[in-house]
Amino acid sequence: MRLSRYFLPILRETPKEAEIVSHRLMLRAGMLRQESSGIYAWLPLGKRVLDKVCAVVREEQDRAGAIECLMPTIQSAELWRESGRYDDYGKEMLRIKDRHERDMLFGPTNEEMITEIFRGYVRSYRDLPLNLYHIQWKFRDEVRPRFGVMRSREFLMKDAYSFDIDQDGARHSYNKMFVAYLRTFARLGLRAIPMVADTGPIGGNLSHEFIILADTGESEVFGHSDYLEKDIPGENAPFDDRAKLQSIVDHWTSLYAATSEKHDQAEFSKVPEKNRLSARGIEVGHIFYFGTKYSEPMKAVVAGPDGKELPVHMGSYGIGPSRLVAAIIEASHDENGIIWPEDVAPFRVGLANLKVGDAVVDAACETLYQGLGKAGIDVLYDDRDERPGAKFATMDLIGLPWQLVVGPKGLASGEVELKHRKTGEKHTLSPESALARLTG
Amino acid sequence: MRLSRYFLPILRETPKEAEIVSHRLMLRAGMLRQESSGIYAWLPLGKRVLDKVCAVVREEQDRAGAIECLMPTIQSAELWRESGRYDDYGKEMLRIKDRHERDMLFGPTNEEMITEIFRGYVRSYRDLPLNLYHIQWKFRDEVRPRFGVMRSREFLMKDAYSFDIDQDGARHSYNKMFVAYLRTFARLGLRAIPMVADTGPIGGNLSHEFIILADTGESEVFGHSDYLEKDIPGENAPFDDRAKLQSIVDHWTSLYAATSEKHDQAEFSKVPEKNRLSARGIEVGHIFYFGTKYSEPMKAVVAGPDGKELPVHMGSYGIGPSRLVAAIIEASHDENGIIWPEDVAPFRVGLANLKVGDAVVDAACETLYQGLGKAGIDVLYDDRDERPGAKFATMDLIGLPWQLVVGPKGLASGEVELKHRKTGEKHTLSPESALARLTG
Repeated sequence: MRLSRYFLPILRETPKEAEIVSHRLMLRAGMLRQESSGIYAWLPLGKRVLDKVCAVVREEQDRAGAIECLMPTIQSAELWRESGRYDDYGKEMLRIKDRHERDMLFGPTNEEMITEIFRGYVRSYRDLPLNLYHIQWKFRDEVRPRFGVMRSREFLMKDAYSFDIDQDGARHSYNKMFVAYLRTFARLGLRAIPMVADTGPIGGNLSHEFIILADTGESEVFGHSDYLEKDIPGENAPFDDRAKLQSIVDHWTSLYAATSEKHDQAEFSKVPEKNRLSARGIEVGHIFYFGTKYSEPMKAVVAGPDGKELPVHMGSYGIGPSRLVAAIIEASHDENGIIWPEDVAPFRVGLANLKVGDAVVDAACETLYQGLGKAGIDVLYDDRDERPGAKFATMDLIGLPWQLVVGPKGLASGEVELKHRKTGEKHTLSPESALARLTG
Repeated sequence: MRLSRYFLPILRETPKEAEIVSHRLMLRAGMLRQESSGIYAWLPLGKRVLDKVCAVVREEQDRAGAIECLMPTIQSAELWRESGRYDDYGKEMLRIKDRHERDMLFGPTNEEMITEIFRGYVRSYRDLPLNLYHIQWKFRDEVRPRFGVMRSREFLMKDAYSFDIDQDGARHSYNKMFVAYLRTFARLGLRAIPMVADTGPIGGNLSHEFIILADTGESEVFGHSDYLEKDIPGENAPFDDRAKLQSIVDHWTSLYAATSEKHDQAEFSKVPEKNRLSARGIEVGHIFYFGTKYSEPMKAVVAGPDGKELPVHMGSYGIGPSRLVAAIIEASHDENGIIWPEDVAPFRVGLANLKVGDAVVDAACETLYQGLGKAGIDVLYDDRDERPGAKFATMDLIGLPWQLVVGPKGLASGEVELKHRKTGEKHTLSPESALARLTG
């Protein structure tokens, strides 16, 4: 992408309304614009990151056997009356009347709707287990939305729903998502700790929040510091082996880790003092097992092996990709701007032409731009007629992993500069070597 | 994907409520489920097709220089009061009050919001032209939604918005989208005719609807039959050359073609009788040039070359990917089911194991399944313990371009069968040759 033809509205000033660093940087880097309180438009750079986050989430859901569908945003209130949650949900639910005065709502979550879909088709235990997920916009009408997309009213959520014939099966489905979440966050460059958590309006008695530590976190969390060092399950994690998967989950839940609602000071004090983590945390994922809470009232039953009908055991599993974009920035930035992990960077390489209009520099940049493009690497080519300082500042601010700097002086001795955003390391090398290194 | 682990709820009965063939086939093929009147959930097979349609739309938007962003679904009524459209829009607009009693709405289109974004950042003609698009769910509260996703209330729309310093520039932006649309529909296997159209609530004085002919079309259309034979502009269409692009558009608008609202019987009668097309049509795209209709009241101005501020000239360009899925089926099916064009097929190959449990057949299928997967080809592997007739019927119904049939008799003589869904042609060949042909 040529920056001269792109839409990247960088802000020079730090917006006053932004209280946390991710919100400030997203506004400054031209990723985001507020349209109403807690409602944001994703500008092109932000949209690219959001898409990359979703791609990672999707890959790991698919790997764990979940199947993607897509439910609508607007739901009928009838469904929520069936489960008994319509009145429970309070003012966070955005209630709507359509032109025929029917009660509708903007979905804050989808337990009811997915249960309705399930009961519409599935009749036998032989069709289980089943895990359906979608990535769709949700709305929760928070009283005081803040922190940008970290706590917005309209937000993107990946929510998965598992169906099993019994509690053992449901536990295995839960464990698959548990492991998928560990892998997802690790790929996003985040170290998330699964913590025993409250189940809130979703319900059930088994639940973990995945928490990353950050000073700007919304809540206090407590845990064992060894969680920060544990190995993440690999691509070939034993998703189909109940016992092996359970042992991975056991390993990841053997030490103390709890959100403030579930905190037990007596238990925490048994953690060796040097390992006691007490910090602010950001919730990046939340998983639930809630048994037959929805299947019973909504009559989502299947015939078991003996022909008798049983309500299915369910769980639900949420990750907010829009919030994750902010969480990644909270975890990865410096005083100059964002530092994107490779998997979610909006472009992998920023190519800076330090003398636009100089035939030699233009030609060298063009060759590099085409070469990187042919190798399938996303490049943002700064071909604007701007001074070098402004180009460097922009590149640092938007945080692309690699900066490739091409100027007349370097080229005179056959050299360009390759800078790694994260480490700050700079290498001077020939354009050909730079290309080889980036495409290798 | 193994069908035994997939969620493909095929219906045996033809649903009574479905009036048109696309709706019937989408319900029967397990692509879609109605959740409320005019509101649908996309089941996994449907979601895959929707994604592929979006991918084609996106590629052609990008090729024409449009830049993707993503605006929220919920908008503030204030914005619509600025343009004066809040009261105009009538009951089709889904109006909402949030918990603080602020007037909000579910966006039926985004002219106001994109104008607000533009005016927030762009100050100079040097930053033009600019074309921003997004693919987002919209809501229009139709009195009588029907025909499934062909006329639903919640629907997916790709809407692009162009900004130019003057009318000439805006016309060029319009032409880019015109050509992008011709290419998009052709790639989706559709022959769309651009027709002079009414501008309705969007406004402006230049507008084309892209119409495909179908007996189930919602409106009457009139045109010259030569439009059905014209060559579609290639990948390297001269998007940056104003004169050349205009000549392509001139070529595509030189003959008579009009929707019923714009129909002129006197002009139509000048078309040679043998070329007079009078038919039902389905609108699959609609493009508008409306000048300063939004930029003037909303004060979206830029400084021109002489420093004087001028309101920008705008256009908007809509395609409905959810409706397109239905339109493609209307245009491409037979009595046995759907016939997907290659670019949008949910899977390219259906692999049918005719004797699950037979070690030789299972092994041959496994080899083919792995081989196709390695070559990056989407395969749906029917590994269920079902009779062959049911498998054939399912494959025909869901319309994958290629069916690869593996049974014990054929394998005994080293052969499998490859069937092309569209032509019905069958070839008997070795598993290796089948693999080579599909991956070649």
